[in-house]
Amino acid sequence: MAHSLDFYFFPGSTYTYLTVNRIETKAAEAGMSVRWCPYNLRVILKETGVTPFPPESAKRRYMWRDIERRTKRLGIPYTSEPEYPVDPDLKALRVAMVASDEGWCPEYMKAYYRAWFIDHKPPGLADNMEAFLMGVGRDPGVVLPRAMSDETTRMMEASVGDAHRLGLFGSPHFVVAGEVFWGDDRLEDALEWAVRQGDVAEAPGSL
Amino acid sequence: MAHSLDFYFFPGSTYTYLTVNRIETKAAEAGMSVRWCPYNLRVILKETGVTPFPPESAKRRYMWRDIERRTKRLGIPYTSEPEYPVDPDLKALRVAMVASDEGWCPEYMKAYYRAWFIDHKPPGLADNMEAFLMGVGRDPGVVLPRAMSDETTRMMEASVGDAHRLGLFGSPHFVVAGEVFWGDDRLEDALEWAVRQGDVAEAPGSL
Repeated sequence: MAHSLDFYFFPGSTYTYLTVNRIETKAAEAGMSVRWCPYNLRVILKETGVTPFPPESAKRRYMWRDIERRTKRLGIPYTSEPEYPVDPDLKALRVAMVASDEGWCPEYMKAYYRAWFIDHKPPGLADNMEAFLMGVGRDPGVVLPRAMSDETTRMMEASVGDAHRLGLFGSPHFVVAGEVFWGDDRLEDALEWAVRQGDVAEAPGSL
Repeated sequence: MAHSLDFYFFPGSTYTYLTVNRIETKAAEAGMSVRWCPYNLRVILKETGVTPFPPESAKRRYMWRDIERRTKRLGIPYTSEPEYPVDPDLKALRVAMVASDEGWCPEYMKAYYRAWFIDHKPPGLADNMEAFLMGVGRDPGVVLPRAMSDETTRMMEASVGDAHRLGLFGSPHFVVAGEVFWGDDRLEDALEWAVRQGDVAEAPGSL
């Protein structure tokens, strides 16, 4: 395949629910592979002092209404507003780092967002993660120690370095041939960019 | 016409450049009229402590690159990054209030954004407004005193009331049949929403 699309995301992001449910189909239609890259957006938000959707704000109310409308438009399941924020201890991000390293990130993220948005049991909250991992056929006794390890901490730190280098500040981001796109509503732009740049070299780190 | 689209905007907004250059054509294609509603977004941003694109931030650099790409995609002129921020004293907003009240807001806003983005002479900066108004066939000696009047101040305050009531927090916003959309990239969604809601009553205040 000529190009891969680098999909940078944070498992606490709401709009990323839309992307996780459609990126594989859309990329395949464009003849692209997807590299799933979890990253520690929370550090970036702390550095910049940004709260994307403050409690009780008009912007947060809008975000949920917009997501409801977009799911209908895109044919993605949605019932009612799920809990938010989630993943206070970054446990879901840590597991995503492991999943990415071991090659099961797409399955993990799709099941993760279904658990959060549809079953209303966010894996990163309360004690949900262990049962969630068993439900998707992963051994919590193997996955969780690795997720909490120093090795995973170093992967998370490296992800912040990538974010600084690329100029990431949200989720989802798409990076193709060095070009950065932000927001689920830029997925089509990113794929069209990749197709138009068909004669450039592969992006660093692409599959 | 069955529906009008309420277009709420702030003349200091960068992405609104895209909308001003395409909303009339897009709305006409959908059989809709447009009501141009300038509003004082700066008060809302101060209330919420939000700086949309902080100086030197990755988000600001991204915004300009994204606007450059979107102008190409949408067939809108763009040469190089214009000055930002603009309109520190809200002079451009005040004139927009007058233009809206007197019925020449579309012409004003299109010429305003051309002056800012293409000619690189933002009407709300330095002493640009007087020459700008003469250039678009308006008498600064008539327009500017009205723009600086208490009556215009009251219109600006009323616009903040509208923003609170509707839950506006950015620019551009589109409001159709009580439904709020945010961002130039939601213009198509707003118009399709209006078409699908063809059997509901006209929005309050529509033409």
